[in-house]
Amino acid sequence: MVEIGKPLDLAAIRAGHERIRPYIHRTPVLTSERLNDASSVRLFFKCENFQKVGAFKARGATNAIFALDDATAQRGVATHSSGNHGAAVARAAKLRGIPAHIVMPSSSATVKIRAIESYGAQIVFCEPTEEAREAKCTEVIKKTGATLIHSFENEDVIAGQGTAALELLEDVPDLDLVMCPVGGGGLLSGTAVAAKSMQPNIKVIAVEPANADDAAQSFRAGRRLVTEKKFTIADGLRTNVGEPNFEIIQRYVDDIVTVSEEAIALAMRAIWETMKIIIEPSAAVPYASIFDHIIDVRGKRVGIILTGGNVDLDALPWNR
Amino acid sequence: MVEIGKPLDLAAIRAGHERIRPYIHRTPVLTSERLNDASSVRLFFKCENFQKVGAFKARGATNAIFALDDATAQRGVATHSSGNHGAAVARAAKLRGIPAHIVMPSSSATVKIRAIESYGAQIVFCEPTEEAREAKCTEVIKKTGATLIHSFENEDVIAGQGTAALELLEDVPDLDLVMCPVGGGGLLSGTAVAAKSMQPNIKVIAVEPANADDAAQSFRAGRRLVTEKKFTIADGLRTNVGEPNFEIIQRYVDDIVTVSEEAIALAMRAIWETMKIIIEPSAAVPYASIFDHIIDVRGKRVGIILTGGNVDLDALPWNR
Repeated sequence: MVEIGKPLDLAAIRAGHERIRPYIHRTPVLTSERLNDASSVRLFFKCENFQKVGAFKARGATNAIFALDDATAQRGVATHSSGNHGAAVARAAKLRGIPAHIVMPSSSATVKIRAIESYGAQIVFCEPTEEAREAKCTEVIKKTGATLIHSFENEDVIAGQGTAALELLEDVPDLDLVMCPVGGGGLLSGTAVAAKSMQPNIKVIAVEPANADDAAQSFRAGRRLVTEKKFTIADGLRTNVGEPNFEIIQRYVDDIVTVSEEAIALAMRAIWETMKIIIEPSAAVPYASIFDHIIDVRGKRVGIILTGGNVDLDALPWNR
Repeated sequence: MVEIGKPLDLAAIRAGHERIRPYIHRTPVLTSERLNDASSVRLFFKCENFQKVGAFKARGATNAIFALDDATAQRGVATHSSGNHGAAVARAAKLRGIPAHIVMPSSSATVKIRAIESYGAQIVFCEPTEEAREAKCTEVIKKTGATLIHSFENEDVIAGQGTAALELLEDVPDLDLVMCPVGGGGLLSGTAVAAKSMQPNIKVIAVEPANADDAAQSFRAGRRLVTEKKFTIADGLRTNVGEPNFEIIQRYVDDIVTVSEEAIALAMRAIWETMKIIIEPSAAVPYASIFDHIIDVRGKRVGIILTGGNVDLDALPWNR
């Protein structure tokens, strides 16, 4: 948890970057003339779809697990995650040589289950509800003494996720705007701290599926609301924003906008077809807001964090 | 045409590289630990799927069109191509500010038609047979005075295609083996000349769909055979190998092996899922021979040219 009186700062993100450097990729920043011309903008895509485990989640989980002292680490780690964070915890635990227990809904995509198994973690299946996941995870922790590595309500996880923006701004220092999606807010809070600390004049705008818009609603209300979610193809973003994350978001983020399911699918397809890279629906959410004219970025230099590339190729949005 | 007594050499490829440099991408060479481990090999993928027009064809067409003298160029260029070469000619003609006439079968994929239209070329539709294409193209040339830019039986096209291997070997000099697919043989002949000239000890192995194996059959027979083709998802490779191309192939290529349709689809999917990049079926053909244990590359350093990334996302091999 982010402790009161000890707000996350750039130094923690830089320390995290040093800590995880041997274990993660420094991912490339790609550009596309065609997408630039289509929106009269200069886009810089930070390709975390090329990251280890196929998503930025490798950063936060690796930072949190390598930050543990030896005695604590030896008792293992546990988390509940339907996907990329689970794989990231499993991989980091394997690298550190400690046990990992991953609680995931029995309805999870096969490709994600296989990925976690390949890292040798213990998978514990549960019912596909938030309550069941948390209850099962608490049970596992009680039984094993493992440490919970929460996917976003964890200071080291947030600092780790912030390293993507750190690298982006090292590579492209003169951005007007940085964008990323928001689910639990781990990436957004880390990104916001990194970006605003490195460049006080930069704008940070988050984008959320309209069908799971609790962060946008909370941002406008000025307090954290727990809202009802409809289905979204951006399955990484169904989570409610976390408490420590929302504190940071309120302080550093300039705006949170929302996009339709159709815009997400079209934006995803546009990036696949134009850039020839595979990104998951959640990763297409920021570009969807540009593609669908939700925000005006004409003439701006915009950094976008492409969060991941783990997609079930048998269930693409345009084959439904 | 490659003239007799003036065989294509590395100097022509280097000159072509200088000529096209302002107009093409120097594409990255990507690696994947997971794919390496799966086959006990070190693979270096030259990513021409990220090339302009989404395929290596941008290299050859640009070289041929910019090599024309001004008077000839002003009368325009023409070609018959169902896909990437057509787009490459259209784009290069636009860059040089001259007319382009692209003859293509009316059955061509929409995404490829749209790409060619976007470069402002004149599309001339024809029946989907080799004869109809050539007849229509001859007719267009007679009417307009345009110069034929053949997709592989053209020395400057071959030299241009060879620049992909040139860059690959500049970036990764110590390869044991270079692999690419073979259709008409433009890429293969350029690759073979570049690779063998830069590193006489390197092996060059081409891979062909078993359903369109005229080059493999010709290679074994020691003379160019025109064979009957079955359907292959590697639609860029249905063509019969060209005459000047086959001469070069006989001289420089070490072997041509074939792969099944199933292996191509599985190899394509493995690259999509593991590397998070979009490649077209033809581009997966060389890796299919490794994936399916057709050739033994254990312990070797292998360069593979990923030829392109233009795929109809509504008709993926695994959604059929």
